[in-house]
Amino acid sequence: MIKLHGFYRSSASYRTRIALNLKGLAYQTVAHDLTTGAHRAPGYLEINPQGLLPALEVEGAVLTQSGAIIEYLEERHPNPPLLPADPLQRARVRALFQLIAADTHHVTSMRVAAYLRTRLEHNDAELRAWQHHWLTQSFDAFELLLTRNPATGRFCHGNRPTLADLGLVPQVFAAQRLGLDIGKWPMVARIVDACRNEEAFQQAHPDRHNTQ
Amino acid sequence: MIKLHGFYRSSASYRTRIALNLKGLAYQTVAHDLTTGAHRAPGYLEINPQGLLPALEVEGAVLTQSGAIIEYLEERHPNPPLLPADPLQRARVRALFQLIAADTHHVTSMRVAAYLRTRLEHNDAELRAWQHHWLTQSFDAFELLLTRNPATGRFCHGNRPTLADLGLVPQVFAAQRLGLDIGKWPMVARIVDACRNEEAFQQAHPDRHNTQ
Repeated sequence: MIKLHGFYRSSASYRTRIALNLKGLAYQTVAHDLTTGAHRAPGYLEINPQGLLPALEVEGAVLTQSGAIIEYLEERHPNPPLLPADPLQRARVRALFQLIAADTHHVTSMRVAAYLRTRLEHNDAELRAWQHHWLTQSFDAFELLLTRNPATGRFCHGNRPTLADLGLVPQVFAAQRLGLDIGKWPMVARIVDACRNEEAFQQAHPDRHNTQ
Repeated sequence: MIKLHGFYRSSASYRTRIALNLKGLAYQTVAHDLTTGAHRAPGYLEINPQGLLPALEVEGAVLTQSGAIIEYLEERHPNPPLLPADPLQRARVRALFQLIAADTHHVTSMRVAAYLRTRLEHNDAELRAWQHHWLTQSFDAFELLLTRNPATGRFCHGNRPTLADLGLVPQVFAAQRLGLDIGKWPMVARIVDACRNEEAFQQAHPDRHNTQ
């Protein structure tokens, strides 16, 4: 049985849950509460020395980093595909995912917020401005990359969910929790709505995994 | 002819140059000076709406995000491989890369530093502490992931350079510029030394691409 170490509202865990659902794979969840530092406990650091979520126990190995985990799932379980077949199109989908995973997620994350608040003594307003700044910059670019490219369809790339949607939906969820109005990016908002109609995304939603 | 939009000391451009060199691909460089904001000029935003480096012009398309570009190069030019053949091993190599690309690079980047300095009025010492904090956390984990796994060899994974080394070497270069002593992580230091002996890494080094 696949075991997913995650937390209900960790974006990277949420991405991974969507991928597992789209692939139709059964998995067991092990929750580590990011708000109490459970992900930094010695037992979990034995599993993932980086102390981050998610980690996937599968085939006797521990995989870390959501992007790497999803590529693994794609290789082992190619159907339905989360990447197009053509290399140039695959690069587009991966770039959209990485715009979120590499350039947006961490800088707006809880652990960066904790540093700003605790060590640098920033208040809520400054923290909010920081998070909105990076989110806005990313969604501005994401929207342009969607509107300028005719390959954008019902989803970020074509008419089936791809890796790009797995990056976008959890980041929009996080942004809305941080008070950002997504209506400013109509194509992003439309695609997130389309994803929310899909069973695999619904089943992965943080509200379904909040055991607190 | 492949055209690489980059900057000599941008880590993500540096990664991409190493990949192009390892694949034996000829390319033309277009330099955009990050220190003068050339990457935010309207002409470049037409090429890459995110205003980040690198971008690769190839086959009539523009590819962005170094991770996506390198995966594209791997798919189009499989030899020599930058990823192992086995899916679990591929996941390990991608996770090491993403530890750098997703969790380390941006938060310690020039544009985050600019926000901390300009908008939040932090001084050099605070900025340096911030950068060293995130770099140290990442290299601590990277070192453990290397030492705990028997697949680590002369390079991060086995005895040939992989995607993981392409993430590590530019990040170590950036960390050393920021005054961090890499000797604290002996396995990281050893592997970076091994990479520095390779022609493809030498030719990609920022000092060879500094046209200023």
